[in-house]
Amino acid sequence: MTLSPPPAARVGDALVSVGTPSLIIDLDAFDANLAAMSAFAARHGVALRPHAKAHKSSAIAQRQIDSGAVGVCCQKLSEAYPFAAAGIASIHVSNEFVGADKLAMAVELASHVRLSVCVDALPQVQAVGEAAARAGVTIDVLPEVDAGQHRCGVTSEDALIELVDAIGAQSALRFTGIQAYHGGIQHVADWHARKSEARRAADSAARYVRALEARGMRCAIVTGGGTGTVEFDAASGVYTELQPGSYLFMDGDYGGIGWGGEMRWRHSLFVLSTVMSATRPGMAVCDVGLKGLAVDSGLPRSARWLDPSIEPVLTYGSANDEHGMLQAHGAPEDDLAELVGKRLLLPPGHCDPTVNLYDEYVCFRGAHVTDIWPIDARGLSR
Amino acid sequence: MTLSPPPAARVGDALVSVGTPSLIIDLDAFDANLAAMSAFAARHGVALRPHAKAHKSSAIAQRQIDSGAVGVCCQKLSEAYPFAAAGIASIHVSNEFVGADKLAMAVELASHVRLSVCVDALPQVQAVGEAAARAGVTIDVLPEVDAGQHRCGVTSEDALIELVDAIGAQSALRFTGIQAYHGGIQHVADWHARKSEARRAADSAARYVRALEARGMRCAIVTGGGTGTVEFDAASGVYTELQPGSYLFMDGDYGGIGWGGEMRWRHSLFVLSTVMSATRPGMAVCDVGLKGLAVDSGLPRSARWLDPSIEPVLTYGSANDEHGMLQAHGAPEDDLAELVGKRLLLPPGHCDPTVNLYDEYVCFRGAHVTDIWPIDARGLSR
Repeated sequence: MTLSPPPAARVGDALVSVGTPSLIIDLDAFDANLAAMSAFAARHGVALRPHAKAHKSSAIAQRQIDSGAVGVCCQKLSEAYPFAAAGIASIHVSNEFVGADKLAMAVELASHVRLSVCVDALPQVQAVGEAAARAGVTIDVLPEVDAGQHRCGVTSEDALIELVDAIGAQSALRFTGIQAYHGGIQHVADWHARKSEARRAADSAARYVRALEARGMRCAIVTGGGTGTVEFDAASGVYTELQPGSYLFMDGDYGGIGWGGEMRWRHSLFVLSTVMSATRPGMAVCDVGLKGLAVDSGLPRSARWLDPSIEPVLTYGSANDEHGMLQAHGAPEDDLAELVGKRLLLPPGHCDPTVNLYDEYVCFRGAHVTDIWPIDARGLSR
Repeated sequence: MTLSPPPAARVGDALVSVGTPSLIIDLDAFDANLAAMSAFAARHGVALRPHAKAHKSSAIAQRQIDSGAVGVCCQKLSEAYPFAAAGIASIHVSNEFVGADKLAMAVELASHVRLSVCVDALPQVQAVGEAAARAGVTIDVLPEVDAGQHRCGVTSEDALIELVDAIGAQSALRFTGIQAYHGGIQHVADWHARKSEARRAADSAARYVRALEARGMRCAIVTGGGTGTVEFDAASGVYTELQPGSYLFMDGDYGGIGWGGEMRWRHSLFVLSTVMSATRPGMAVCDVGLKGLAVDSGLPRSARWLDPSIEPVLTYGSANDEHGMLQAHGAPEDDLAELVGKRLLLPPGHCDPTVNLYDEYVCFRGAHVTDIWPIDARGLSR
């Protein structure tokens, strides 16, 4: 029996008739963000290699390439497959990996695309080098340095030099530079504080670069940076390549931090939800909870009605698995039953893990659906 | 080009070679939980209709049916499709819904299975009744009553009677009882406190039942209850049908509450993860974060080595998107580099949304993979 749910939306549908919950993109805002980052990178003469872990969609990656990106980053090897399959020619896996299953993926990917990977330990260099040699492929390798996040990456210049020497000893590996990414400072709220944290990370990266240069090892690429720090990273004189991801969407958490200088991003990503119950005064319940909204960085900070003529202001107060609890502002006794069936636009607190809950983006301009983009790397976390 | 990631595991593989992160089921523990709940329901003479939102897998639903369940619950209409397609003959959608897209799903499902749904408002009764009549199908309807959760459900006996009258006026609808579910008390830590909260919910349900009986309306079904309260619900004399879901897996949060009486559940669900970096003293990084572990109810409370001979005790301290930060207990200066490549069993803090991140269960007995079960309702939240 072929029995499967109907699509949430088709191109041409009115936005108001899209099945909910759905993940929707305001394409006007999206296009503005896409163009602004491309122009920014070009203006500063740095390469743009957006992080595809944010959107997990080869349709979006292709748009980034078309507007000037040199390739994409992926965080996992399995995540890279749909991008390779879609013809994205240059993929950087911005993460360490270990194990036979991962090595098999790396060499398969490297036979289709120009692949670069991160390493931070000698055994990994040897394992990748031997696997690549056996498979007859070449893999670019960028040791990761700890630029202050204290997560992955080498913590000394000596350890870095050892890694680069080891890469040089592997005929199937090519040393192309280093990765210095500090995720922990991307969301620092104060713009000036974020600027000085970014400077500190860039200075740290520069020390590693100089240590290599002193040994005659040139870093063609210094890659890193996220949406929160690219404006500083681009101006640092250290980074040659930027890895922002969230700029396309702007999540609630990023939206809440301070912005200055050149950077202005628009919220383009929302979860569209429907009020499905309202039996208590001042309360309503919508149809999206933990399974349609990542809450690790907070709940949606606003709940805007799709129909702007609707008046009560509601707050998304808590999430159960499949329910969102909405409270009326300053009107605890109002009967909200008339809101049942009405639709809300909820900006996710954290885009990346929210995107990972959906199989497609429903893209709209104005009041109509114009595109459906598969989230073809959804769930690919190996 | 057909280029897609290799499978994480195949039947017969050694567990130690399964690609990570993967969601794995210890089948011995799973079978014990499955059998225990079936025996419990049979002993108490209540129907068991497990909640499939917990596992989202028709393979598991079939095992529940085979061991005596009368059907399953789903939380969303789209979620019900794979169960209907797999031949599960009786499905209860334990939730309200609104809108033309949802009505279309309801009548399509009702043409394949015995479908029951929840309502808590008159317009929904009319909409479902008219859609069912137009489609020539019959739908069982169970008004939801608020048993104390203050989420969905009617809040007065009069409102309930109005709903039942309205259901009676629709030729394509069949009133079969009520739903009284109180999710908020499932995780009350103290066993005695949970018992008295469950009694209060059952008393509330009983008042609604009596109000209907006083009007000559018989509730053939009073459905509700979750893993935390089924022992009390079964003994309440009120509930005829129980909806537990988590008992199969036991998540970290449930595992942390007090258990008494007859109920003893085993942890059967884990995320298998690999340590992929360890460049700082006393710290290691594993390959699963927010995209492979729901953290809304807390981080994994333990991190057990797959190989029990490995000694250092690590704590899963924080989750980034694709990284888990591990700290060594009481050994902040230890070099943990030798742990890179070793595998950890992480019990999710909250099973339901964790399951929703994966496409399959890798099932094992002892040290080997014995089954792969698709999570065919993953992501179906409409």
